[in-house]
Amino acid sequence: MHPCLNPSLISTKELTGYLGVAQHAGFEWVEADIGDIRKRAEQTSPQEVVDLFASRGVQLASFGLPVNLSGDEASFRDGLARLDRNAGLAMMLGCGRCMTWLRPSVDALPVPYASRIAHRLRLCAEVLAAYGIRLGLEFVGPHHLRHKAYPFVYTINDTLEYIEGIGAPNIGLVVDSYHWYTTESSIADIARIPAGRLVLVHVNDTDRSPAKADDHERLLPGEGRIDLTSFFRGLDQAVYNGPVSVEVLRKQPFAEPESEIAEKAFRAVAGLIEENRS
Amino acid sequence: MHPCLNPSLISTKELTGYLGVAQHAGFEWVEADIGDIRKRAEQTSPQEVVDLFASRGVQLASFGLPVNLSGDEASFRDGLARLDRNAGLAMMLGCGRCMTWLRPSVDALPVPYASRIAHRLRLCAEVLAAYGIRLGLEFVGPHHLRHKAYPFVYTINDTLEYIEGIGAPNIGLVVDSYHWYTTESSIADIARIPAGRLVLVHVNDTDRSPAKADDHERLLPGEGRIDLTSFFRGLDQAVYNGPVSVEVLRKQPFAEPESEIAEKAFRAVAGLIEENRS
Amino acid sequence: MHPCLNPSLISTKELTGYLGVAQHAGFEWVEADIGDIRKRAEQTSPQEVVDLFASRGVQLASFGLPVNLSGDEASFRDGLARLDRNAGLAMMLGCGRCMTWLRPSVDALPVPYASRIAHRLRLCAEVLAAYGIRLGLEFVGPHHLRHKAYPFVYTINDTLEYIEGIGAPNIGLVVDSYHWYTTESSIADIARIPAGRLVLVHVNDTDRSPAKADDHERLLPGEGRIDLTSFFRGLDQAVYNGPVSVEVLRKQPFAEPESEIAEKAFRAVAGLIEENRS
Amino acid sequence: MHPCLNPSLISTKELTGYLGVAQHAGFEWVEADIGDIRKRAEQTSPQEVVDLFASRGVQLASFGLPVNLSGDEASFRDGLARLDRNAGLAMMLGCGRCMTWLRPSVDALPVPYASRIAHRLRLCAEVLAAYGIRLGLEFVGPHHLRHKAYPFVYTINDTLEYIEGIGAPNIGLVVDSYHWYTTESSIADIARIPAGRLVLVHVNDTDRSPAKADDHERLLPGEGRIDLTSFFRGLDQAVYNGPVSVEVLRKQPFAEPESEIAEKAFRAVAGLIEENRS
Repeated sequence: MHPCLNPSLISTKELTGYLGVAQHAGFEWVEADIGDIRKRAEQTSPQEVVDLFASRGVQLASFGLPVNLSGDEASFRDGLARLDRNAGLAMMLGCGRCMTWLRPSVDALPVPYASRIAHRLRLCAEVLAAYGIRLGLEFVGPHHLRHKAYPFVYTINDTLEYIEGIGAPNIGLVVDSYHWYTTESSIADIARIPAGRLVLVHVNDTDRSPAKADDHERLLPGEGRIDLTSFFRGLDQAVYNGPVSVEVLRKQPFAEPESEIAEKAFRAVAGLIEENRS
Repeated sequence: MHPCLNPSLISTKELTGYLGVAQHAGFEWVEADIGDIRKRAEQTSPQEVVDLFASRGVQLASFGLPVNLSGDEASFRDGLARLDRNAGLAMMLGCGRCMTWLRPSVDALPVPYASRIAHRLRLCAEVLAAYGIRLGLEFVGPHHLRHKAYPFVYTINDTLEYIEGIGAPNIGLVVDSYHWYTTESSIADIARIPAGRLVLVHVNDTDRSPAKADDHERLLPGEGRIDLTSFFRGLDQAVYNGPVSVEVLRKQPFAEPESEIAEKAFRAVAGLIEENRS
Repeated sequence: MHPCLNPSLISTKELTGYLGVAQHAGFEWVEADIGDIRKRAEQTSPQEVVDLFASRGVQLASFGLPVNLSGDEASFRDGLARLDRNAGLAMMLGCGRCMTWLRPSVDALPVPYASRIAHRLRLCAEVLAAYGIRLGLEFVGPHHLRHKAYPFVYTINDTLEYIEGIGAPNIGLVVDSYHWYTTESSIADIARIPAGRLVLVHVNDTDRSPAKADDHERLLPGEGRIDLTSFFRGLDQAVYNGPVSVEVLRKQPFAEPESEIAEKAFRAVAGLIEENRS
Repeated sequence: MHPCLNPSLISTKELTGYLGVAQHAGFEWVEADIGDIRKRAEQTSPQEVVDLFASRGVQLASFGLPVNLSGDEASFRDGLARLDRNAGLAMMLGCGRCMTWLRPSVDALPVPYASRIAHRLRLCAEVLAAYGIRLGLEFVGPHHLRHKAYPFVYTINDTLEYIEGIGAPNIGLVVDSYHWYTTESSIADIARIPAGRLVLVHVNDTDRSPAKADDHERLLPGEGRIDLTSFFRGLDQAVYNGPVSVEVLRKQPFAEPESEIAEKAFRAVAGLIEENRS
């Protein structure tokens, strides 16, 4: 497993600065916005961007799927048409992962809504497959997001069922410790994920109970009560060896300078990886 | 369009007798249980069964998908394994259609349930495709079947979304006048079904309001208040030219002899087809 | 099995006349050109064409794939774009089969050529699948057509390999007695064709040896030396129950009136079917 | 682009030693045999192997497809069944590429042979897709290998046709400078490869003419007359940014110690990458 920087920790969005923070803190992997990277590649050149990542010793671990899955057909088709170029650029950066997330509850009729998203995800996955990129779907656990009219999916097993229903070989799961905790899942739930279906891992923490944890009030790993040692044991049993990205969504920015936050995050996740190994 | 006999009208289940009733009433198409046909083919021979249909001037229009979609994995896999032989026999009988129905509401979490069924339907459709057989999904409209915890699909548009989510080219719709009526759908809803997606049509009637019609208290076409003239106009606009099967589910058997019922049914649907044409 | 009229027997190309000849001779199935049918449907209406077939008691058994597979990309794409409407019309006529043929030898480099055709056949098969139509590939046996630089495929087994390489579930074989004879194939070669892979059968005859038979000098079934009794025994062992189309390609038209030829053809194939059954 | 060590340079097959040579010479990417890696992972553990690569600062760039594509069905199925575990292990090592090569000529009938291999490659690609691994096909150019009865594919364009015929989104090309040279291909031929279809690059050299170059008498890049500057310009125009593996097949081992060979190889390819960039 590899510690991975997530943009949620860092207010610097400009790529050179962002990669510099990553490098300084020790991260060799980052998540980043492919649209921002693409804009830069258009201004300079793809090679300039490749060289920039290389010069910082950093590789792109994953990017958010830059396609509007729940909007109208024209908007979806527009994003799909541009996905080819975005995926090609990500491939050049050595990136084999892409991700998006699923709402835990919806007001729309659940089956037609789920079907429309499944159809669109399958089309996206076909484009990504040509670039050797897997698409991870993140289920979202916090209880305060389950208030809409109908449940969608928000557990490992239900999301795996949804993935099998889509029928694309390169679609898998994103497991985030926050969602694992708020759905009160077990080590065994992680360990049972079939090899190849675990695409990406997010890690973070909370000091609240599973039912009270707010999706946008997250803590750095180790600062709360989530049993991250068990979480990593589950990842180990699932023989996961990809990026572990520290995603800490918050309403308020961190008080400390971002370089300090990045270092703390790196130490926390590197420590958990190390602890699990020994 | 072709009038088609449905087993719901006839208590005789033995194949020779069933086909005899169809022939006598004027039907050249029938729906029948492929499991029953298969048993007979095993006792005699496939050729004997082919000859039996031919000697009555009748062809198999469609058969119910002989696979348990909502049961446990072992039961599903068992039916799937046998589907190949069943589809092969149906193909020998000139049959290009298979059908199953979808619950309008479910107690299970709707998205994982819909996903599991989608995955299983896709596997079935792949087997059927090798025999040139399309699989029609029938949505079910009566209000008294919508009482379970979550809605599934029960309109033309929602079922089309579900079908697109499955992603198999040979899966389409079954439209039944009962469900069209109880969901208060329009001519335009039928007319908008893409060519090739309309696999099979069921026709019948009720004298109750859409909200009160009971799925198991159906009438013969023309004996109730469903605007079947409009229904057939919609089919015509969708350029449908397949079997129109008279499916009259009832709790009590008909009082009249089954040959009389079959004749009445034939005259009713033949009349509607004729009326629409002129 | 069902005797099927093939346009090669009949100089009348106009649809009403062609179907009249078929009906008069006893044929309930015909092969016909879907482009001609489509033109008529555009002049009158699809329903008029459906009624015309019905009034003659005839159904469309199969149509030639109306797509230029070996031409340039623009020409191929044009045919593919129109295939959707052609397949929809065929479906309305109760037709579940489409066919094309493969050259036994080619001057182009064989693997790139075969790959390009495979890709195009897969795209066509996907369109046809939505209409429940299977696509049969006919291998071509006569020795005088094997003179080009490289062999393509011209036996049952090699064509089955090619079909498996394409990877579309609804692509299968057309077996023609002329090609079965000129490749000196056996009953067992037919019997081994997997159920569902045998899409269409052509029957005809020759009085020459396998190596000398000319593809465009064919005889009516029974007028030559092909062992058609064995051919039909093979079809029976393959549990084939589809159309058997009398395709008699010739350089000179028949001397007899076409109604007489059609009757002779019907009697010949009906006799072979009957003989095989008893 | 990243210099990549290829096992052809090194007699040490034991993994620790092989990775040590790579690290010492400056390589951060290596090709290696997944079967050997797997055996080690079974003796120690997958984590031990992951740690071994990490401790040498080396990642697995690609592995040879460990499946017998041209053997009998049982042998193929056996390799396919084990591919899942091999691909899972490769994924754990951060590897997104797998490769195999195609014969330039064959004695078997070319189309059935090509079809059987296409079918098998598609089955392999489906397994690999679940692990985000692309499968590259290497065409082979040297003239002395074109003596068999029929040509297969041995140019960029023909191999791209073959790939499109297979129909798997994650199958692409391996381009080797030896085959590019011996087929007298151009910069433009490389530049035209669609983004995402260029999976892996091999580099090497020869001092003979294209028609005389022997596949097993290769030289280190820069020691012969292949215009590698143009070759890298083509890769750059195809926006390739993956591993460039120095594959030098030879009948006699190198005279120099393998550490020296590895260093020479690294300097040569690093120099070409650098030269192209500036």
